[in-house]
Amino acid sequence: MTWINVPDGSPFGPENLPLGIFRAGDEEPRMGAAIGDQVMDLAPVASAQMLDGSQVFAEPTLNSFLALGRPAWHATREWLLDLVRNENNRDAVEPHLIPQSAVTMLLPFEVADYVDFYASEQHATNLGRLFRPDSEPLLPNWKHLPVGYHGRAGTVVTSGTDIVRPSGQRKAPADDAPTYGLSQRLDIEVELGFVVGSPSKLGEPVPVDDFMDHVYGVVLVNDWSARDLQAWEYVPLGPFLGKSFATSISPWVVSLEALEAAEVPLAEQEPAVLPYLASENLANYDITFQVYWNGQLVSSPPYREMYWSPAQMLAHLSVNGASVRTGDLYASGTVSGPEKDQRGSFIELSWAGREPLTVNGEERTFLVDGDEVTITGSATTPDGHRIGLGSVTGRILPGA
Amino acid sequence: MTWINVPDGSPFGPENLPLGIFRAGDEEPRMGAAIGDQVMDLAPVASAQMLDGSQVFAEPTLNSFLALGRPAWHATREWLLDLVRNENNRDAVEPHLIPQSAVTMLLPFEVADYVDFYASEQHATNLGRLFRPDSEPLLPNWKHLPVGYHGRAGTVVTSGTDIVRPSGQRKAPADDAPTYGLSQRLDIEVELGFVVGSPSKLGEPVPVDDFMDHVYGVVLVNDWSARDLQAWEYVPLGPFLGKSFATSISPWVVSLEALEAAEVPLAEQEPAVLPYLASENLANYDITFQVYWNGQLVSSPPYREMYWSPAQMLAHLSVNGASVRTGDLYASGTVSGPEKDQRGSFIELSWAGREPLTVNGEERTFLVDGDEVTITGSATTPDGHRIGLGSVTGRILPGA
Repeated sequence: MTWINVPDGSPFGPENLPLGIFRAGDEEPRMGAAIGDQVMDLAPVASAQMLDGSQVFAEPTLNSFLALGRPAWHATREWLLDLVRNENNRDAVEPHLIPQSAVTMLLPFEVADYVDFYASEQHATNLGRLFRPDSEPLLPNWKHLPVGYHGRAGTVVTSGTDIVRPSGQRKAPADDAPTYGLSQRLDIEVELGFVVGSPSKLGEPVPVDDFMDHVYGVVLVNDWSARDLQAWEYVPLGPFLGKSFATSISPWVVSLEALEAAEVPLAEQEPAVLPYLASENLANYDITFQVYWNGQLVSSPPYREMYWSPAQMLAHLSVNGASVRTGDLYASGTVSGPEKDQRGSFIELSWAGREPLTVNGEERTFLVDGDEVTITGSATTPDGHRIGLGSVTGRILPGA
Repeated sequence: MTWINVPDGSPFGPENLPLGIFRAGDEEPRMGAAIGDQVMDLAPVASAQMLDGSQVFAEPTLNSFLALGRPAWHATREWLLDLVRNENNRDAVEPHLIPQSAVTMLLPFEVADYVDFYASEQHATNLGRLFRPDSEPLLPNWKHLPVGYHGRAGTVVTSGTDIVRPSGQRKAPADDAPTYGLSQRLDIEVELGFVVGSPSKLGEPVPVDDFMDHVYGVVLVNDWSARDLQAWEYVPLGPFLGKSFATSISPWVVSLEALEAAEVPLAEQEPAVLPYLASENLANYDITFQVYWNGQLVSSPPYREMYWSPAQMLAHLSVNGASVRTGDLYASGTVSGPEKDQRGSFIELSWAGREPLTVNGEERTFLVDGDEVTITGSATTPDGHRIGLGSVTGRILPGA
């Protein structure tokens, strides 16, 4: 399928072609496509072919490319597919293939607004049990709308950025008053993030069937969470400092067009949703994540079982007329499956610390300074074909 | 104090000199300072004087100016004060004074992250009584930390932008299931917004005493709210669509340096706050707002009684290491005083619709299509001197 050498098991086969921003040495950051373990340097290839609008490939973020819209995204994908499939392109492309090991990947796009949903029934149920043990775990609104909230766009960081342990206020139920100090319950959340390309107009909701006209693709998200800060602060206006210190995303943005082959129908929703959330075409993706804690696989959350589809999230987010902008990121919320080894956060895996895990022979509940978490993910198509999302990683540094 | 004609009662006297972005005819938008009922076109004045860095005045947002930091903000203010005080500058300045009636004011800065606090004890108590009638109105965390959450930066609009009535899900307690439709409880929130100029570093909290090194100035904020959408959606992750359709801000940013003369000490906080929120120098501003509903004054909320100071809000927002960026906007939350005619939202003024107001002879609880709300505000100094914030206005258009 390609004249380029793609190692067996590579997440980045010739059907995937995710886009990102790389820096090679002290050159200006610019756009690349991943193929196997190489980066295709798009600006010189496009420029040599006198491709219309090729200057977007030389920019230091994907935003200008994302703003071009679906026809341009499709044309770019067709161009890339031809480059890697057709050996006639070898002379034009080969000089511009750079080993991924020789470049630094940067934040792929400037994040406009960041919204975090809560779309896994298993996760919402688990958290409800842990945070509100005396009431029904799922609140009455949960099956009527995809619950979500705004997060901090300015602290979305690229994979590999160190995470400084946050400080703040915590209060255990037994304590009289809160205390200030380092978070003792530092956690992860495994999520899928959706990257908006085409903006919408203020006052005009995005119909549920227009999802692919606005969203370009996906990234892996690790929504780091300080559970002790969150538990004390979150009523009545929701999580704030428990989440806002850092959210890590993977450097390669995989297009929805590449992911389409891994679509699965959304499971039936009961009760039936309101018409603005309904469609014949609601889909999920057959993606499985892997969570590595200091290199040890501790969980494999499945995306295909998420209750709310990403098209519903976008329709809901905009039903009040809120506009979306190029660079908006909305994440699915923690992905947890029904099995214990499918839970997407450590508060669930360790059941709030009561059931420690053994990681490389050491006991763990929440994150310890120096710990490293890497999340990988890939979609599988019915023909067994794999579309990798790459990975997002981060290490905990001691806080001040 | 100035050779420029400033009408009696103008919010924009020669000590104020707020900055904004104006468009005159079909010229490029650029930075101006308000003086009386005129705009001083700063780019040509600065350019003629060969002022260092004068190109920032020609930009279409304040962001580059804001990023220059406190010494540059101070130097600019000193330059402006000299321009308006010293009649020697008349020849250089007078050709660049444009009537405010001849320009259009635009969004003054590109909003990075938007955070909304909840810092009025009266407002939080009133809302607690209305939203959670069966429990203590103030939740246990309220006096320990300034409760806040992230809002939608992309739907912050400038004064004068029409507000389309939002639709979404509502469920009255008596209903079995939610319904979709136009919000029937469209409301305002009178707030003061703080505009961040100098960024901070990820992982490094901003000390409470560094407030003026990071925040350039203030704007008036009307945080439009759909109370019926909010009441159904807000558990457990906080307000989302009930707020995200629009937030209006005033076009003129008044500097903290101009406001300093109107500082008042923060009232004593009991229980004592944790050390990261404590300082000898905590201050509020002696600002009074006026709320006009279709031209009729319905409320005059006082800012000086806010429980949390803006310096504490910034220290709290960043205590977990979250960085701030140029263009961040954080708002105080609704300003409500103890008297009925000092409440900063219609849900409070009409006590959730149970006590209608008479507005120009018509009964009102929440906003009706075609209604217009204008909020003005000004600070008063001990010598009776007035520093106006201008106004923020918006009219409700029917929803689809």
